[in-house]
Amino acid sequence: MRIAIDAMGGDHAPDEIIKGALEARELLDAEDQLILIGVQASIEKHLKLAGCPAGAIQIVDAPETIAMDESPVDALRKKRNSSIAVMARMASNKEADAVISAGNTGACVAACQIRMRNLEGVNRPGIAVVLPTLGGPVTMCDVGANIACKPANLYQYAIMSMVYSRQMLGIASPRVGLMSIGAEDAKGNELVKKTRDLLKTDPNVNFIGNLEGRDIFDGACDVAICEGFVGNVILKLTEGMVHMLFSAIKHELLAESMELALKFKPVMTEIYKKYDYHEYGGAPLLGVDGTAFICHGTSKSRTIKNAIAASKKYHMKKINHRITDYLKNSALRTNGD
Amino acid sequence: MRIAIDAMGGDHAPDEIIKGALEARELLDAEDQLILIGVQASIEKHLKLAGCPAGAIQIVDAPETIAMDESPVDALRKKRNSSIAVMARMASNKEADAVISAGNTGACVAACQIRMRNLEGVNRPGIAVVLPTLGGPVTMCDVGANIACKPANLYQYAIMSMVYSRQMLGIASPRVGLMSIGAEDAKGNELVKKTRDLLKTDPNVNFIGNLEGRDIFDGACDVAICEGFVGNVILKLTEGMVHMLFSAIKHELLAESMELALKFKPVMTEIYKKYDYHEYGGAPLLGVDGTAFICHGTSKSRTIKNAIAASKKYHMKKINHRITDYLKNSALRTNGD
Repeated sequence: MRIAIDAMGGDHAPDEIIKGALEARELLDAEDQLILIGVQASIEKHLKLAGCPAGAIQIVDAPETIAMDESPVDALRKKRNSSIAVMARMASNKEADAVISAGNTGACVAACQIRMRNLEGVNRPGIAVVLPTLGGPVTMCDVGANIACKPANLYQYAIMSMVYSRQMLGIASPRVGLMSIGAEDAKGNELVKKTRDLLKTDPNVNFIGNLEGRDIFDGACDVAICEGFVGNVILKLTEGMVHMLFSAIKHELLAESMELALKFKPVMTEIYKKYDYHEYGGAPLLGVDGTAFICHGTSKSRTIKNAIAASKKYHMKKINHRITDYLKNSALRTNGD
Repeated sequence: MRIAIDAMGGDHAPDEIIKGALEARELLDAEDQLILIGVQASIEKHLKLAGCPAGAIQIVDAPETIAMDESPVDALRKKRNSSIAVMARMASNKEADAVISAGNTGACVAACQIRMRNLEGVNRPGIAVVLPTLGGPVTMCDVGANIACKPANLYQYAIMSMVYSRQMLGIASPRVGLMSIGAEDAKGNELVKKTRDLLKTDPNVNFIGNLEGRDIFDGACDVAICEGFVGNVILKLTEGMVHMLFSAIKHELLAESMELALKFKPVMTEIYKKYDYHEYGGAPLLGVDGTAFICHGTSKSRTIKNAIAASKKYHMKKINHRITDYLKNSALRTNGD
């Protein structure tokens, strides 16, 4: 398969992105083709320095770059030859079987949504992240692709995330929960109530009802469904909380003694390793006709390597095919609201 | 002033609630009157056991109790003599200057909203919590009273929280942020965009624009405004995250050595103390004509004591008067959408 990577996206681009692509080669088969998209001269220089034989990784020139903080819509309009725009075009023209970027998230999502068609039966794509928790990995969708959600969208996010959780994480019957503000059926806004009615009606979904914020981390569910605004807040809040708690611990430890702080360091490293979502290599944009993974802006080579492996697994497991199949055979017709 | 406390509300009622009321006496003045609402015989027994002189604390009999997990609306309809219903009636009849409960949150909010009038100029009350963060206390509103928010509601939450932050936490010019999914102006849903337009127009609000989830904990703002669904998810997620991280740390420490785990314990205790929102003694229901504080269901005596002190401060600082004054003199007319 052909996997195209935006070499210019992310805080550590292009160095770490190219490094990740090089490291990923050991995970791929001989017939797999990696493609780096970006400023050709820069990519060539990096590959040469790394001792990569010419032609081992294909390069597609994209002279423009979208910065991490640019307005997505403006940037895409102005920079038609940016690595993100070229990447989305390649995906849409089937010149790549999977695309990966750690660049401007808004621009990536917008470019893929505009360029790639939706899968049959899917109204709106959603971003799914895998959160590592004490109770195992939780797939949460959507975390920001769609902030004007309808019940049908949320129902489809549940189906897509269920297939993803089963195929990618090996969870046979994922417990699907719906983010709300109380466990009882009567709790939640109109969107939640209508979505619950849809999910309850589908006998093939292991639907466990409403989730509260605290349930995500305690092993209550395998899949958490929410609209993009709420999901995005959750995702970024989680990052902020972890950062704050570890800072607070460090501060207290240092106030106690340097010796204790040093003793605690390996514990911290172990926790970081276990609960590090970089391990999952990025978030798929579920519902587009193709395989698109979006990585965190802070991604280093390991994340890119993992994302390449994940995109291959996604493709080989025929996840999109399974999603369209499910939706085609579902008794639930959700093309409207 | 007269402060009425629901003696039957919370996981540790009535013991810890009554204990908290007794402990709070040292913070009050001779003319202040504490009132305990609940099953009279039970309260009398507790007070007698604690050696409290008869009459030092007034008792108002409320023979029924609403359980923590009862459906709020049903429970209020059926149990008109529950401590929560009696408490809200006392507030509405001005038989108490402040009311406090650690009981069923949904029932407390509903009872207060139904019984107490709104302050002049306020369309919908909102619950404000104070989150302790590395950057200082952040007042977040709404965390669940109103899940069908309009821009005018969010604007009023900003004003009320600003007054609260200034008077209760001593922050002279609170930086007010709006929860969204990106820092740029263009980011967010319709509700956020329209609210931003309102907040920008008010020269008396120190409005700093959009907040992302991670900004809450890093000292970027003093006040965070959001609609009740999002706020409730944030609040419960925060609880869940803290619990998970500390569990993970404990697990790793024990795997390392019992000795290290024991050394870490005082550090953990210190952090709990610094970032414990029980310190703030509960969350005010801003926008009702009166003083109503809602405490966490897990509240022990310290929280109740702090809530009693907070309700007195709220009353003495004339926060409601300041809110109505502000809204009356604001050039912004927000009575519609």
